[in-house]
Amino acid sequence: MPTRTLRKFLRKPKGLLVVISAPSGAGKTTIALEVIQKVPDVVRSISMTSRSIRPGEINGKDYVFVSQKEFQRRIKLNHFLEWAEVHENLYGTPKSWVNNQISKGKIILLVIDVQGAEQIKQAYPECVSIFILPPSMQELKYRLIKRNTESKESLTVRIRNAMIEYKFVKDYDYAVINDDLNNAVEKVRAILAAEKCRVHRWLTPKK
Amino acid sequence: MPTRTLRKFLRKPKGLLVVISAPSGAGKTTIALEVIQKVPDVVRSISMTSRSIRPGEINGKDYVFVSQKEFQRRIKLNHFLEWAEVHENLYGTPKSWVNNQISKGKIILLVIDVQGAEQIKQAYPECVSIFILPPSMQELKYRLIKRNTESKESLTVRIRNAMIEYKFVKDYDYAVINDDLNNAVEKVRAILAAEKCRVHRWLTPKK
Repeated sequence: MPTRTLRKFLRKPKGLLVVISAPSGAGKTTIALEVIQKVPDVVRSISMTSRSIRPGEINGKDYVFVSQKEFQRRIKLNHFLEWAEVHENLYGTPKSWVNNQISKGKIILLVIDVQGAEQIKQAYPECVSIFILPPSMQELKYRLIKRNTESKESLTVRIRNAMIEYKFVKDYDYAVINDDLNNAVEKVRAILAAEKCRVHRWLTPKK
Repeated sequence: MPTRTLRKFLRKPKGLLVVISAPSGAGKTTIALEVIQKVPDVVRSISMTSRSIRPGEINGKDYVFVSQKEFQRRIKLNHFLEWAEVHENLYGTPKSWVNNQISKGKIILLVIDVQGAEQIKQAYPECVSIFILPPSMQELKYRLIKRNTESKESLTVRIRNAMIEYKFVKDYDYAVINDDLNNAVEKVRAILAAEKCRVHRWLTPKK
């Protein structure tokens, strides 16, 4: 019995599904890209979409492109961990792809909004959720202005959304303040390393 | 409301109480000493004891030395997170010292056996518990023999105890396999960094 316990702890643990959310301008995409580059076994989640492929995009790398009809068929068959409609196009995270990567021991990073994260947590409670916070509201505003891609109107909307999104921090497992990019990346890295050591991930769930 | 949430997340988080257990020979003390040396804000827990001070020991650094009578008075007053009798001497972890260090933002490392850890977890459920595992039973035996401090009888007892202690892994938050010292130290470090990002540590507990 104890030797079996030991053996169980020595086998290669399964992968992880990691959900990252943040208000726009908090730096979630930059952090995710750095983590993917620096940490072995970390992969970016590849969504399925019903929108048309754009020049330069690669099917199976940027997105998996399917028809609207095929996407809807898959929704009915409960093929997605989460899905959403954005500007009349459908986007979703396929369960089969996630399960496949996890069985290979991969850590999947999924950058997603708070609503999508909520769906994922329901469908996949073992997921790890991280909320990225800007150091302050002033700093968030400053970063959005610096980007220079937002109209004044869109800026106001984004700031208002950020104020609403903060309320969801409490539903996440971890919060990382992006005061400095390297610091924030190191924290996300530590979270991934720590989660791989969590005992409940090795134990067979009670039935 | 959202701004308050943000402000809450930006305040300095409290410290942590970290419990480390392992069968003898797994390397828990070496790992703890390395972590204390390498990670800022990590301190070793200082126990209170009723045994006499030995030459070279410093009161308040190695232990806090008190009389048997004083120790027993404190047990009655519920002053300890955990206590135990070893060879007719009393040893315990004072609550006041732990609370004081935690309010200063310190991370307290407490190397303790599975029974002591059980007491701590009951008295202080916010604690983080780590179980250190040797890479294999063969390796554990080899390390104990190499130490050359154990009689053959004592070795058999230690191996038997190790087999029993493994059963408790399931009650710990994290398991770290000490296959390589640097690896194991990095994992413990990651656990401490990750735990400081855990959202539930910032939130006021529900009443």
